[in-house]
Amino acid sequence: MPDARPSLWRGRLSAAMHPAARDFLSSFSEDAALADIDIDVGEAHALTLSRAGVIPRADLVRILKAYEGARKRARAILKSPGTFHDIHPLLEKHVLDSCGERAGGNAHLGKSRNDQVAADMVIFMRRHALVAAGEAAALASELASLAASPAGGEPIPAYTHSRVAQGTTVGHWALAHASVFTRDAGRILDARERMNFCPLGSAAIAGTSVPYDRGYVARLLGFDGVWANYLDATSARDHVLELMAALAVLQGNLSRLAADVMHGSGEDGVFEYPDYLADTSSAMPQKKNPDPLELVRARAGTVSGALAGALAITHGLMSGYSRDLQELKPALWGALATVEDSAGIMRLAVAGIRPRRERAVAVLDRGYAAALDLAEWLALHKGVPFRRAHFAVGVLVRTLHGRGATFRQASSAESSRILSDAARSRVEFTEAEWREVADPVLGAIRRRTSGGPGDVKRLLATAVAGIRRAAAAVRTLAAREERTARNLKATVRKGGRR
Amino acid sequence: MPDARPSLWRGRLSAAMHPAARDFLSSFSEDAALADIDIDVGEAHALTLSRAGVIPRADLVRILKAYEGARKRARAILKSPGTFHDIHPLLEKHVLDSCGERAGGNAHLGKSRNDQVAADMVIFMRRHALVAAGEAAALASELASLAASPAGGEPIPAYTHSRVAQGTTVGHWALAHASVFTRDAGRILDARERMNFCPLGSAAIAGTSVPYDRGYVARLLGFDGVWANYLDATSARDHVLELMAALAVLQGNLSRLAADVMHGSGEDGVFEYPDYLADTSSAMPQKKNPDPLELVRARAGTVSGALAGALAITHGLMSGYSRDLQELKPALWGALATVEDSAGIMRLAVAGIRPRRERAVAVLDRGYAAALDLAEWLALHKGVPFRRAHFAVGVLVRTLHGRGATFRQASSAESSRILSDAARSRVEFTEAEWREVADPVLGAIRRRTSGGPGDVKRLLATAVAGIRRAAAAVRTLAAREERTARNLKATVRKGGRR
Amino acid sequence: MPDARPSLWRGRLSAAMHPAARDFLSSFSEDAALADIDIDVGEAHALTLSRAGVIPRADLVRILKAYEGARKRARAILKSPGTFHDIHPLLEKHVLDSCGERAGGNAHLGKSRNDQVAADMVIFMRRHALVAAGEAAALASELASLAASPAGGEPIPAYTHSRVAQGTTVGHWALAHASVFTRDAGRILDARERMNFCPLGSAAIAGTSVPYDRGYVARLLGFDGVWANYLDATSARDHVLELMAALAVLQGNLSRLAADVMHGSGEDGVFEYPDYLADTSSAMPQKKNPDPLELVRARAGTVSGALAGALAITHGLMSGYSRDLQELKPALWGALATVEDSAGIMRLAVAGIRPRRERAVAVLDRGYAAALDLAEWLALHKGVPFRRAHFAVGVLVRTLHGRGATFRQASSAESSRILSDAARSRVEFTEAEWREVADPVLGAIRRRTSGGPGDVKRLLATAVAGIRRAAAAVRTLAAREERTARNLKATVRKGGRR
Amino acid sequence: MPDARPSLWRGRLSAAMHPAARDFLSSFSEDAALADIDIDVGEAHALTLSRAGVIPRADLVRILKAYEGARKRARAILKSPGTFHDIHPLLEKHVLDSCGERAGGNAHLGKSRNDQVAADMVIFMRRHALVAAGEAAALASELASLAASPAGGEPIPAYTHSRVAQGTTVGHWALAHASVFTRDAGRILDARERMNFCPLGSAAIAGTSVPYDRGYVARLLGFDGVWANYLDATSARDHVLELMAALAVLQGNLSRLAADVMHGSGEDGVFEYPDYLADTSSAMPQKKNPDPLELVRARAGTVSGALAGALAITHGLMSGYSRDLQELKPALWGALATVEDSAGIMRLAVAGIRPRRERAVAVLDRGYAAALDLAEWLALHKGVPFRRAHFAVGVLVRTLHGRGATFRQASSAESSRILSDAARSRVEFTEAEWREVADPVLGAIRRRTSGGPGDVKRLLATAVAGIRRAAAAVRTLAAREERTARNLKATVRKGGRR
Repeated sequence: MPDARPSLWRGRLSAAMHPAARDFLSSFSEDAALADIDIDVGEAHALTLSRAGVIPRADLVRILKAYEGARKRARAILKSPGTFHDIHPLLEKHVLDSCGERAGGNAHLGKSRNDQVAADMVIFMRRHALVAAGEAAALASELASLAASPAGGEPIPAYTHSRVAQGTTVGHWALAHASVFTRDAGRILDARERMNFCPLGSAAIAGTSVPYDRGYVARLLGFDGVWANYLDATSARDHVLELMAALAVLQGNLSRLAADVMHGSGEDGVFEYPDYLADTSSAMPQKKNPDPLELVRARAGTVSGALAGALAITHGLMSGYSRDLQELKPALWGALATVEDSAGIMRLAVAGIRPRRERAVAVLDRGYAAALDLAEWLALHKGVPFRRAHFAVGVLVRTLHGRGATFRQASSAESSRILSDAARSRVEFTEAEWREVADPVLGAIRRRTSGGPGDVKRLLATAVAGIRRAAAAVRTLAAREERTARNLKATVRKGGRR
Repeated sequence: MPDARPSLWRGRLSAAMHPAARDFLSSFSEDAALADIDIDVGEAHALTLSRAGVIPRADLVRILKAYEGARKRARAILKSPGTFHDIHPLLEKHVLDSCGERAGGNAHLGKSRNDQVAADMVIFMRRHALVAAGEAAALASELASLAASPAGGEPIPAYTHSRVAQGTTVGHWALAHASVFTRDAGRILDARERMNFCPLGSAAIAGTSVPYDRGYVARLLGFDGVWANYLDATSARDHVLELMAALAVLQGNLSRLAADVMHGSGEDGVFEYPDYLADTSSAMPQKKNPDPLELVRARAGTVSGALAGALAITHGLMSGYSRDLQELKPALWGALATVEDSAGIMRLAVAGIRPRRERAVAVLDRGYAAALDLAEWLALHKGVPFRRAHFAVGVLVRTLHGRGATFRQASSAESSRILSDAARSRVEFTEAEWREVADPVLGAIRRRTSGGPGDVKRLLATAVAGIRRAAAAVRTLAAREERTARNLKATVRKGGRR
Repeated sequence: MPDARPSLWRGRLSAAMHPAARDFLSSFSEDAALADIDIDVGEAHALTLSRAGVIPRADLVRILKAYEGARKRARAILKSPGTFHDIHPLLEKHVLDSCGERAGGNAHLGKSRNDQVAADMVIFMRRHALVAAGEAAALASELASLAASPAGGEPIPAYTHSRVAQGTTVGHWALAHASVFTRDAGRILDARERMNFCPLGSAAIAGTSVPYDRGYVARLLGFDGVWANYLDATSARDHVLELMAALAVLQGNLSRLAADVMHGSGEDGVFEYPDYLADTSSAMPQKKNPDPLELVRARAGTVSGALAGALAITHGLMSGYSRDLQELKPALWGALATVEDSAGIMRLAVAGIRPRRERAVAVLDRGYAAALDLAEWLALHKGVPFRRAHFAVGVLVRTLHGRGATFRQASSAESSRILSDAARSRVEFTEAEWREVADPVLGAIRRRTSGGPGDVKRLLATAVAGIRRAAAAVRTLAAREERTARNLKATVRKGGRR
Repeated sequence: MPDARPSLWRGRLSAAMHPAARDFLSSFSEDAALADIDIDVGEAHALTLSRAGVIPRADLVRILKAYEGARKRARAILKSPGTFHDIHPLLEKHVLDSCGERAGGNAHLGKSRNDQVAADMVIFMRRHALVAAGEAAALASELASLAASPAGGEPIPAYTHSRVAQGTTVGHWALAHASVFTRDAGRILDARERMNFCPLGSAAIAGTSVPYDRGYVARLLGFDGVWANYLDATSARDHVLELMAALAVLQGNLSRLAADVMHGSGEDGVFEYPDYLADTSSAMPQKKNPDPLELVRARAGTVSGALAGALAITHGLMSGYSRDLQELKPALWGALATVEDSAGIMRLAVAGIRPRRERAVAVLDRGYAAALDLAEWLALHKGVPFRRAHFAVGVLVRTLHGRGATFRQASSAESSRILSDAARSRVEFTEAEWREVADPVLGAIRRRTSGGPGDVKRLLATAVAGIRRAAAAVRTLAAREERTARNLKATVRKGGRR
């Protein structure tokens, strides 16, 4: 009777899986990225079983050897999945075939796909979290370099409601974005820290009767400790969602930087856009289109859609592994790749833009960017209450705009007259004073309180310190990953002997 | 000077595109599915230019031959994209190389990637809409077959709030789902009908000065007419979103069917679940898990996330093609594949489930499924106002449940007594009457008004008629697609001669 | 024993609902909009019961009177929900209290909240669908009026990738949007048509044993027929999702129009933006911000988020009413209100913008908008293959842009020389010819093929015809709603006598 | 001329805002919750201006008095917004009217709605973050209490794929959820910590020329420091998105707990469900429906939809305040209220469920929950390699299930025979051994490794420690909020004198 069984894994069932269902279930396109990790986990598990005396040392050695063989041939193995639809039994099958049922048949003792995939995922995510956080920090660093360069001192408009607001400098603008990406790195590293606990030992959901030192296997695989509760360890995906949310926020921030650069670099914009990130039109010969930045923007939609999908997938699910959770993989994989690539594109963009001073000044003038400075001048130096000063400057702008003139194209006399009328009080500007207050570039520098364009040097120092901290955290954790990998390799080589 | 130009497409620019940007922009993984369509469009365009006398017949013949060569070698061409990042210039380059600049240099005259990709997308979508609508209709048909089979007459519980509600039959349940999927097919075909207009002639966005018979090219490519306004034709993606929304709704409906089957087929459920759609656990030997159905459910999250992403991508974009729109492709491709595959899985599931009558009856009894029938009996035959009858039956259920008894395990005397007390009026059941009213299976059949379990035969006939209409519409349109393809092929073979 | 029961509705339970749970479940803030409809449904149901002889005529008259009383005092009733958390039992309680248990106790016989809320929702949606479709058509009409006005003939740039692409006219642009909103109206009306079937008779999920003429009640309430299958009628929400998707697409289209207007109406844009839709800054006196249009854009995110939420809510739910479905109400209510209001805002915006011809011409010149016309001219009149012509014009643009000159600022001689070099063939322009081809406004008019700026008159006629069809459909259906309401009122007045 | 101006805020414009636009922009329904905070911010700002000598002390006193007046009449003020559409100018107008233009006209000097609303939002969010984190911790605490109670030791099944997996205890299950909610509290507190910096001083976007001690105002309002960069401080909303994501994850976790309780408490489930959280059916008298828990589940969809909407709103926006950002308010407000209420409902649910031991044991037996224990027993004690043992137990289950028998209903002899055949090796169980290994309740207790049902006492201690830390953090921060409020009040009372 047992001979008719479709496979050693399907004793309970009397039919093989339908090929269409197998294809439907297949996660091999994501699993390729997990192969090495899954082998590490299998080896660490075998070492832990051996340490507890559950499997003899000779079997351990055979199992480890089989795993190392699988590592070398992983690509080929994944290409012939046979009747399997995910990597875990496929690798176990390889071990079973390599070292025989007696030894290999215990490779999976005390574990389940459920705790194994949970462990694989944490390891995968914590490594990619470093890449993503590193990319965010590198972009912040590129922005800080722009701020520190001579270009950083050039004037540009700051916008609100996509309309010219006030004058500021390229450096001030660049450091604003640098702050955002430094926070992004922090968010990702926080997510990493919250997740780095080892699910192994949980088996299917409620544990195993096999003696097992959870702390040992956790140390072998570079975790910060064990994931305390089995049900939680195999069911929870809040860490996946937290990381995806951090990625969605980061991609959104990238899209904002992209929007700023695209807005600032139209044919006659305040930035010169680099040709190496431009595409032409197949039809219109004059076009110089910012296609890569448009895709960075669009992919903020994709990543947030993937997050919405991931939340919907987990929504209303009972505790315990359900196959639904596999569907988080492509969402996460895609989000990570998108964010990593997009940050790289934005770094190229930041490195390539060149401020165009005359354009910036013209835009500032035409946008009456000195208007707030002027209203504050009236309040601080002319005794006009701010709300009234605001009104009077509004009237002045309306009058000048009606005939197409900027503040600097108006005389001090005309301005003084219109302002006096509207403010209902005598306001007198000398020509020199008017030249000063009407200049949007000078105005920016006058804003010296902490955080503004007149305080960029200090902002730069603060920003650089923050970026360095983030980058150092990434480096330290990356070094730890390498150390863990080396140690596991050495332990495997020694066959678990200490 | 021109010699330093990076390529014939980049005369405006002085640098080639950065390789990282090229990779980032690449749409080749989606474009493979468009190659044949893009070649059809290119050929139809060339025929239209020739017909207007814009290109000489000899050049037309060369161009058509080059396109046919590209069709044969499409796979190889796509594998060597060189400096290109999408399929349109890549194929144009092939034509240019094949027939020389003099002839091939006019292949793109009068069109742009913008109208070309818009045309490609409509053709791709209208074909896949037929597949998806066909799958929905086929699933509805499978459900109708179940209803028509002997199994269709078997009792099962209907649930509200995931709790037993009333008794009904397998057929009634199956036809409810069949109605849904028939509506889904209709929704998809409506979307198809609204989109099938030809964008060609729009060029980049505001048209071309090249003489061009838009009606002719539209007929050649099987459109129902021209897409009237150029700006609209190249900018709009509401048709993509409408189709994606229809797919998201369909996948959600598939997830509901999957939920019903999973709920009904636990180890002791009312359905026997087919082994060929079951997976085992790698650890727990007793498990028979409905993994493919869980993935159908999860993918409702994925498809609705993709829709959310697509809406976010188009949100706030100005008119006119932006590269952001390219990002709709992977979302749409994925949604189509998911829906088509998932419908197939659910067809296998419907074909494989087997009702388990004793289980169903036990569940109905334990769930007091006859309670509404009983309350209505009190109202219709015993003169108890319904609201009071409802209360009295509630009290009876509470009393019986307290000691673990079902309606059928209670005597008519005890029931009569409790109901009389609670209803504050004399209610007397004979034993025979009580046997009848307490039987949840008989109760279902008594509900004979149109639309209920006692009306399944008529419901079946109505459902089958609807499914046939949908399937026939799909077949007719598919035949038209084939006719269009044949005609275009013949016209190409004749080099446009009529 | 029964006396301790918390209420006539809770015979089954031995405790009242916790007040926190009652508040949590409360749907009164949405139900207010359903009160009139729910009363109509209750009356129609009573009429149907009476017609079948299930309740005596005297009871019918009492019930109808009680409902009419409730209609008058609906606001007060909703303000004192007592222990209820939705409108259905609250109104039934009112009927019960008004006409006593004997008559009023049968008001709910043969129905359930499940089929009742399903019926209410369809009536509510089909009415609001008319409002939303009507708003879309009215906006399309406003756009067509702009196209038909003298302003419609003014030049404006068309953009791709948010960069100047080609010249076109205000009318061409307005009609592109008019086409979109006409499709939106069609989408909404299609959704309305697919849903207008009557769920009554389904009771909880699997029907009632009460004799009931479903066709009669459906006619009374203005449905196109009965919703065939009970399980489907009470479980399905695909019609809600379809309508919400149509609204999300429409709001996205509104956001595109808003984006175009905002982009075109910066301080020095091609449109003058109306002051009555502008907000100022509390700080910056010069600001004239397009806040209402920004909110139209933002609310595309809100509506698509609500759709994503609605899809997630229904995802994976079993058949049969679950309380989860109540949560669709606020999502739908919000989407309808947002779309209706936003369309009104955009109508005000379209009515208020004024083209600024000199700005448009300057933008077109600076954006080399005639470049495609020029390349086509080279191909059509100078024998330069298009791809080479495209390259040559690209080189010309690059050269001129390098020194800040437009096409029209270049001489025919210089242009001819540069083009000849880059095209590797002799290209000669007379000064007159160059003046003609370099003029982006003339170029637009030259594009006379169907669908372009040179074909606006015909496009206008087509667009107006489509808008009229949509508006007429809305009017016809609205008239039918009124007729249904009048008839029901008359039938109620006559107490069901015919 | 100025007299015709629509208002003191609209000097730049020549028309009042259209009433429809004003209604469309109105944020008063959210602003009510900000009134007190906005007044605090206004007072702190005035104190800072006075401290810098920008406004005289007498004016300060007038302004503070006007603000305190506004605080008392806030409700009335909000009900008569006049021509305003948000709270900020409305309160400023009140100050202006109360103390005259000379003093009140400078209340807004040196600030803008943009930095003000950013400050308000952080204060509002950091307070609500404490409520939400506190609710998460309180729910975790309720779960820990259940684990610590006698009920915690009762057996229940653990499920995977919604099918019985292994036996465990109520306490183990409860602590798994307690861990999740403790992480949720941590996530929310992390978000709070990252955001608590003061945007004031940024004014519109690029700062103010008014002397201003940012550190002073930040301390007055309880911030941890200043938000370094102005552009960042007024543009960034990543902190809003981070908080909303944490709420969406938390609501998803609540939905999982709800799903577990609903699944476990069907009419014959392993939990008795509390009547005070049950609703009945209006039609079916037997129903006891878990409506509040269904809404908790559904609202996971709503909150994640709101997050998707919020991400879409910010997606692609340029830096600088845009009115789009206002649309985050209703999304955030709704998410906070939903999460806070839902956590309360789940606390009531956890407090009300009662384990039903016999049901649990029956479900475990029928689900062959001891199967993994048995396979491990074969591997550990009978020398059968695990993969073979798994197969053999699968065959045994298949055989027994075929005739409806559980492990415990099989004899040791029969089991031994079937296992031996399938394992291809002699496996002998004594009757006593078989009784032990076949008992799913004993099996659970045998899993003593850290994290499992046999280790609940230690898990409980760990969980309680974590919950206490989270709760203490919430309390400490809440105390600090109160201290800040007291101090500000005192400073205001003293009119800024120190």
